Amino acid sequence: MIENTWPDSVKCSVKNLKMFVIMKFFLKHLLTISSRLSKSVIPSLSVWDGHFSCRWRSTGGHGRQKYFNDRLPKFRFALAGLLAGTGAVLAYKLHQDKVQLAATSAQLRVTQTSDLPVYTLEEVTKHRSLDSGVWVTYKGGVYDITEFVAIHPGGDKILLAAGGALEPYWALYAVHQQDHVLEILSEYKIGVLNPESYKKQESANPSDPYSAEPTRHPALQINSLKPFNAEPPASILSDNYITPSVIFFKRNHLPVPRVDPEAYRLEIEGLSGGVVSLSLSELKSRFPKHTITATLQCAGNRRSEMNKVKQVKGLNWGIAAISNATWSGARLRDVLLYYGFGPEVAAKAKHVQFEGLDKDVTGTAYGASIPLNKAVSEEGDVLLAYEMNGEDLPPDHGYPVRVVVPGVVGARNVKWLGKIVVSDEESKSHWQQNDYKGFSPGTDWDTVDFKSAPAIQELPIQSAITHPAEGTSVDRSDREVTVKGYAWSGGGREVVRVDVSVDGGKTWHVAKLRTSDQGQHPAPPPPPGRAWAWKLWEIDVPIPHRAQELEIVCKAVDSGYNMQPDTVAPIWNLRGVLSNAWHRVKVKVSEGFKDQK
Amino acid sequence: MIENTWPDSVKCSVKNLKMFVIMKFFLKHLLTISSRLSKSVIPSLSVWDGHFSCRWRSTGGHGRQKYFNDRLPKFRFALAGLLAGTGAVLAYKLHQDKVQLAATSAQLRVTQTSDLPVYTLEEVTKHRSLDSGVWVTYKGGVYDITEFVAIHPGGDKILLAAGGALEPYWALYAVHQQDHVLEILSEYKIGVLNPESYKKQESANPSDPYSAEPTRHPALQINSLKPFNAEPPASILSDNYITPSVIFFKRNHLPVPRVDPEAYRLEIEGLSGGVVSLSLSELKSRFPKHTITATLQCAGNRRSEMNKVKQVKGLNWGIAAISNATWSGARLRDVLLYYGFGPEVAAKAKHVQFEGLDKDVTGTAYGASIPLNKAVSEEGDVLLAYEMNGEDLPPDHGYPVRVVVPGVVGARNVKWLGKIVVSDEESKSHWQQNDYKGFSPGTDWDTVDFKSAPAIQELPIQSAITHPAEGTSVDRSDREVTVKGYAWSGGGREVVRVDVSVDGGKTWHVAKLRTSDQGQHPAPPPPPGRAWAWKLWEIDVPIPHRAQELEIVCKAVDSGYNMQPDTVAPIWNLRGVLSNAWHRVKVKVSEGFKDQK
Repeated sequence: MIENTWPDSVKCSVKNLKMFVIMKFFLKHLLTISSRLSKSVIPSLSVWDGHFSCRWRSTGGHGRQKYFNDRLPKFRFALAGLLAGTGAVLAYKLHQDKVQLAATSAQLRVTQTSDLPVYTLEEVTKHRSLDSGVWVTYKGGVYDITEFVAIHPGGDKILLAAGGALEPYWALYAVHQQDHVLEILSEYKIGVLNPESYKKQESANPSDPYSAEPTRHPALQINSLKPFNAEPPASILSDNYITPSVIFFKRNHLPVPRVDPEAYRLEIEGLSGGVVSLSLSELKSRFPKHTITATLQCAGNRRSEMNKVKQVKGLNWGIAAISNATWSGARLRDVLLYYGFGPEVAAKAKHVQFEGLDKDVTGTAYGASIPLNKAVSEEGDVLLAYEMNGEDLPPDHGYPVRVVVPGVVGARNVKWLGKIVVSDEESKSHWQQNDYKGFSPGTDWDTVDFKSAPAIQELPIQSAITHPAEGTSVDRSDREVTVKGYAWSGGGREVVRVDVSVDGGKTWHVAKLRTSDQGQHPAPPPPPGRAWAWKLWEIDVPIPHRAQELEIVCKAVDSGYNMQPDTVAPIWNLRGVLSNAWHRVKVKVSEGFKDQK
Repeated sequence: MIENTWPDSVKCSVKNLKMFVIMKFFLKHLLTISSRLSKSVIPSLSVWDGHFSCRWRSTGGHGRQKYFNDRLPKFRFALAGLLAGTGAVLAYKLHQDKVQLAATSAQLRVTQTSDLPVYTLEEVTKHRSLDSGVWVTYKGGVYDITEFVAIHPGGDKILLAAGGALEPYWALYAVHQQDHVLEILSEYKIGVLNPESYKKQESANPSDPYSAEPTRHPALQINSLKPFNAEPPASILSDNYITPSVIFFKRNHLPVPRVDPEAYRLEIEGLSGGVVSLSLSELKSRFPKHTITATLQCAGNRRSEMNKVKQVKGLNWGIAAISNATWSGARLRDVLLYYGFGPEVAAKAKHVQFEGLDKDVTGTAYGASIPLNKAVSEEGDVLLAYEMNGEDLPPDHGYPVRVVVPGVVGARNVKWLGKIVVSDEESKSHWQQNDYKGFSPGTDWDTVDFKSAPAIQELPIQSAITHPAEGTSVDRSDREVTVKGYAWSGGGREVVRVDVSVDGGKTWHVAKLRTSDQGQHPAPPPPPGRAWAWKLWEIDVPIPHRAQELEIVCKAVDSGYNMQPDTVAPIWNLRGVLSNAWHRVKVKVSEGFKDQK
C-alpha cells in the first residue's frame, strides 16, 4: 500500500551506486582544484581520468564550501537520483561518461587508512548537528557524514542516528545491508571507537526488529523482506473475487508490531471532550459493526512499467499490489460523533490524522491523514476495522485495528492504529508530505517541490490483465483467446466498462464484468459514489487471422467516465506512483496440435 | 450542454444522405426480385447498375416483408448510421460501392407522379399507427412513412406526427429544412390532400416556434440555429475567468420558452406532503440565497475531434462548449427538506427528476435526472438558480429558474425549470435514457444497447488550448511561445496540474494555474470534492531549436489524479460525447522580422 523512504530500487542498481561513489570521489577532487566550478564543467568530468593520492577531506577549502553552498540543492538531487537508481539523472549530468571506472573504484579503498584517530563514545555524541558536524558509528568505526546528510536518499532521517550507532537504523531498512552502502560509508571514515566504547555500544544495540515477523504464504512474490512487501502472483489474483487474506498484497513500512489486544488502547485527540482512550472491547461493543467490501491498492501498483520507461524510486511492484477483501468494524464517523465531534470541531478541523503502532527506533510512527469530510461523511464508509474476511485482522494487515478508507490510496489505510487526531492540519509524516504525490513527467529530482502537489487520496481508474501471462502462447485452433483481469477506480466510482483489444488498441471488445465469484450471487449494485470494490472481468476474443502475435490491451471506464491513459511515458513520475496506463500483454499465436490433426 | 435528437451532422453530410436515398431505392427493388436476401448479398449491390421504371411500392410482396422482419434492426441502424453521416457504416455494409449514383438519383424523381389519389384529412387521420400505417402530410402531399419510422434518425418521435402535418415538427428542428430530407420524403408520397383539407390544415398550423427567440451576441459561433446552439470563439473563451453571460455557450434542445415571472410556478412531486407549487417570489424569499462559481460543459464539447476520427452523431462542437459563471439561488437541498424530504422519502427515492418548460409541439418537455444523494447532500451544492453572474438568468440560460448541478454534465442542468420529481426512477426522457451515454469504440449503431451504459453524470478531466490557434505562426525570435487554455474536471475534483508540451508530448512543462482574472484575488481553495469551477492556465515554453512546426499539447490532472487519455480514437463513441483526449494544436515557427534586423 505504502512507500519506503529508502528506495528499493537501490537494491537493484548496483552499477549506479558504484558510479555514485566514483562520481562523488571525482567531484571532491575537482573541487580542490577549482574554487569556482561552474555547472558547465561537470560534463567535462566524463573525459577526466586522473589519479589522486591525497584525500579531499584534508585539502578542501573555501572554494569547496562555496560550491556546495551554490550547488547543493541541484547537486543533492542529482546524486540522490543516482542513488535511487535513476540512470537518467546520471545521463543528464554526465552525458558522455565513458571513464574507466574500475580502476578508480579500487582507488577508493586507499582512503580507508588504519592509522585513524581513536574516539570515545562521548566525543562522538557531541557531533549531532550540521553545525557541530554529524558523526555516526558503525561496527567500531567513526564516520563524519555531515556532507552526506544532504544527499541521503532517505532524507533527514539520517540525522536520527547523529552522535550514535547506525546499526539500529540499518536494521529497519535492509537495503543498507549491502557492500555498496558500506563503500559509500567508508568514504566518510574519520576514526575508530576505543574498545570500551564499542563494547558498551554493542550491548546497547537492539536485536533485529524484524525477528518477530509473522510467517507468510510461500506463494507471495517478495519485493522487500524488511520491511515486508509482497504481492500475489498475477495469475492467481483474479481467481477469487474476495482475495484470501494470506495472499492479499502486503505493504509494510516498518516492522510488524505485536500488539496485546488486552492492553491495546486507541487514542483520539482533537475532539471537544479531550483525549479519549478506547480499548478494543469498547470499540467492538459500543459501536455497530459495519461490513464493507473494499479494494485496497498501493500507489505504486504497476510501478515496474514506469521503471521500463525510466528508472523510478520505489518498490518494483507488478500488477498485483491490489487486492479485495471484506472489512468489518466500527464506523469512524460513529466513533467521532460519540466522542464529541460536532459543528464546533467541524468549524476548525479539516483533516483526520492516523498514527500506527509501527515505529522506527526513534519512536516515529507511521502516519497519514485524510480529509475531514471523507472521515465523517455517512457516505465515506471509513471503518476502524478489526476483521478482514470475517476473521480478526492478520498481523500483516493491522491487528488488532486498522483504518479502512475505501476508495483512497492504501497509504492512508493506516494499520495497527494507535492514534486518531482531528486537526486543522494534514499529517506531518514523511509519507503524507514528501511521498505519495504525483508529478509531471518533466519534474525530476532537481526540480521537484513536494509542497506543489497534493497528497494522493482518491486513486484514478485502473485495470490490468491477469490472464494470459506475458510471453505465453495461445493456440490458433482455439479460435478465441480468453482474457481475464481486474478493474477498479478510486473515490467510490464504479467500474462501468472494460474494453479489451487483441491488436494493440486498434479494435475493441467489451468484457463481461462480475462482482462475485463464479456461481455466487452478484453483489447488489452499490449506491452512487460508494463502489468500493473492484470488478473482475473476462472475455473471449476471436484470434485475428494471420496474427503471429497478439498485443492484448485492456482499459476500464468508471462512472465518472474517467478513462485510463494510453501510454506510460506521459504519466511517468519520479516516484513511480499512479501507474494506470492501458495494460499490455504480448502473447504468441502458435499453430497448435488441434490444427495439425 | 445537451444533445439533439436529429443529428446536426446530417446537415453536413449531403453526400451520405443522397447515398441513403439511392441505397434505399436499390434495396427496395432488389427485395422484389429475391424473397430471401441474405446479408452477404448486400455487398454485391456495389456492382449492380441496372435501371428500374417500376415503383417498388406497387410490386412488393411477402418476401419484402419477411426481409424487413428478419433484418429490420440491423438494416435500421445501418441506414440510421448513414443518415447520421457515419460513412463508416456505409463502408461496413457496402465495401466497394462504386455505382454510378447520379443517374439513379435523377431516376428517383420519376416516382413523383402527378396522378396520385386525393385524400381528405379525415382519411389521413385514420393512419396513425404501424398497424394501420403511418401517414403524414406535408404542404398538401400525403405520405405513407410506415417503413421509414424504423429508420428515422430521431427515433419514434416521428410517430407524433402520425395522421397529421409534419410542418409543426419540422419547425422545431431546422435540420429537416433541406432538399435531401424532401428527397427522402418524396419516396413515400402516396397522394395529395383535397384543397379544402389543405386549407384547413394550413390555418391550424402554428407559426414558427422559434419566432420569439432572444437576440444573441454576434461573436457566437452557431452550430444550430433552431434549436439554438452556439459557442464563443475559443480565442476569447479564456479571456475571462467568469465567462460573460452573452458569450457563455448556449445549448438548447427546443425553442426558448418565454416565461412570465408572475405566473411562474415550480411544482415539486414525490415528497411526503403532496405536490408543492412554488412561486418565484416564494423561492427567493423562503430560502437563503447561495452563490457558487461553477463551470458547465456540454457532453459533446470537442466532438469535432471525434468527427475527424470517424463521423459521429451530434452537433459539431469545437473546444468552447464549456463556460464558467457564478450562479445564485436556493439550494435544492433546502427546498426539498422544507417541503418534507426526510428519511421515509429517502428510503424509497433514488433520483431527482427535472422537467423544463421547453416543450415540443406534443407537450413533451425536456427532462433529466440526477442521483438523490447529489441532490440532497450539503456538499452537492445543487442550486435552483435564478441569477447568473449577478443578474436575472438570461432567457437562453433558463429564465426564471434553472437547476445548476455543479460537477455534472450540462444535460442535467435543466433550464426553465417547471417540475421536480423525487422518485425511485431516473427520468424517462429520451435525453436521460437514449442519449448522453458513453460507449466503447467497438460499439456501433448495429450493436448499441442504450440500457447497457449509465447516463452521464460527472464528467471526466478536461483541458484545451485556447491560444495559440491551430495553423497560426509563432516567431522564432520570441524564443518562447505563450500557451493558454482552460482545465476542469467533474465531480468537484479540483484541477491540480496542467502539463504542456510543444513537441507533441515528448517533453512536458507545468503551467501556471489561476482561479481569477489577472490582477484579482484568486478564489479561496475549495473544500475537498467541491471544486466546481475551472482553472485557466498559461505558460511560456521555449521554442525548441530547429523546430519548423510545434505540436502543442495539453493534459490536465485532477485531485483524484485522473489524467486525460492520449488519443481520440480509443475513446471514440458513436454519440461523440466525452471527448477529452489531449488537446493538440499545430503552429508554424516563422523566422520573423525581429530576427532579420
